[in-house]
Amino acid sequence: MSSFSITTQAFHEHWQGHRRLTRRVIEAFPEKELFSFSVGGMRPFAQLAFEMVGMARGGIRGVATREWVYTAELMHHGGSSPTTKESLLALWDTTTAEIDGYWPTIPGARFEEVDMAFGQWEGIVNGLMQYWIDNEIHHRGQGYVYLRALGIEPPAFYDRS
Amino acid sequence: MSSFSITTQAFHEHWQGHRRLTRRVIEAFPEKELFSFSVGGMRPFAQLAFEMVGMARGGIRGVATREWVYTAELMHHGGSSPTTKESLLALWDTTTAEIDGYWPTIPGARFEEVDMAFGQWEGIVNGLMQYWIDNEIHHRGQGYVYLRALGIEPPAFYDRS
Repeated sequence: MSSFSITTQAFHEHWQGHRRLTRRVIEAFPEKELFSFSVGGMRPFAQLAFEMVGMARGGIRGVATREWVYTAELMHHGGSSPTTKESLLALWDTTTAEIDGYWPTIPGARFEEVDMAFGQWEGIVNGLMQYWIDNEIHHRGQGYVYLRALGIEPPAFYDRS
Repeated sequence: MSSFSITTQAFHEHWQGHRRLTRRVIEAFPEKELFSFSVGGMRPFAQLAFEMVGMARGGIRGVATREWVYTAELMHHGGSSPTTKESLLALWDTTTAEIDGYWPTIPGARFEEVDMAFGQWEGIVNGLMQYWIDNEIHHRGQGYVYLRALGIEPPAFYDRS
């Protein structure tokens, strides 16, 4: 069957590039609106960011160690949910460091294995990871609408620096 | 350098799965709001869908033939922009068929080449394609907010059937 290769370094950069952009979206919100504003009865952006953090922290740990845990401890940084922009950004940065720390321990072949993420979603590991990235892009796009509705210019989509 | 393989079939399915979901988002809009409704001064969803179609049609052609063309002809189906939901969906389906038609002609190694998409964005071909997919996810997420603001339940994000 026809196939192509991706370096694990490129995949890491793809994910962290998206995460850098999402971090800028968090930063762009005024603190009050980050935790309270939404459109159409949806969740505020902080809630969407918590979901991203939970998937990323539990996910990278599962990929690296084969232990899949999705808990309040992982999502909420010691059990207490961030209630300020500063603490949410700190949680974001902790997650970034965890991904960077685990990444070099993951052999290329691991990304081709079939696994059951969080005990319930079966798929090829790189596809499972792509799903978390896609989920982040999806919810971040919603954050762009919140920002526009607040009269705030969102960061450029193409800039992943 | 550490790397992993993706079958071209899996990458095709990834893209078309996202495009099936986006098609359902188009279908979920009432016709009038598809072309007129937005939040925060953003483009209506039909305009976002035109952009996706332009990237996808010009993109798959560029990947398959090395001729990069991004024109009103490609985006607007013979030069005239769709003005009904039916004609937009027909354009969407034409694009789907073009992707399916070109796909088997693209060798796996093509996805690993460096190219200059549309004469201006340089990158590894699979990464360029990922960018179009990410752009679609981003704008589709915005469509979810429009639907919620209209009181309409969007289709399930995880369902790519």
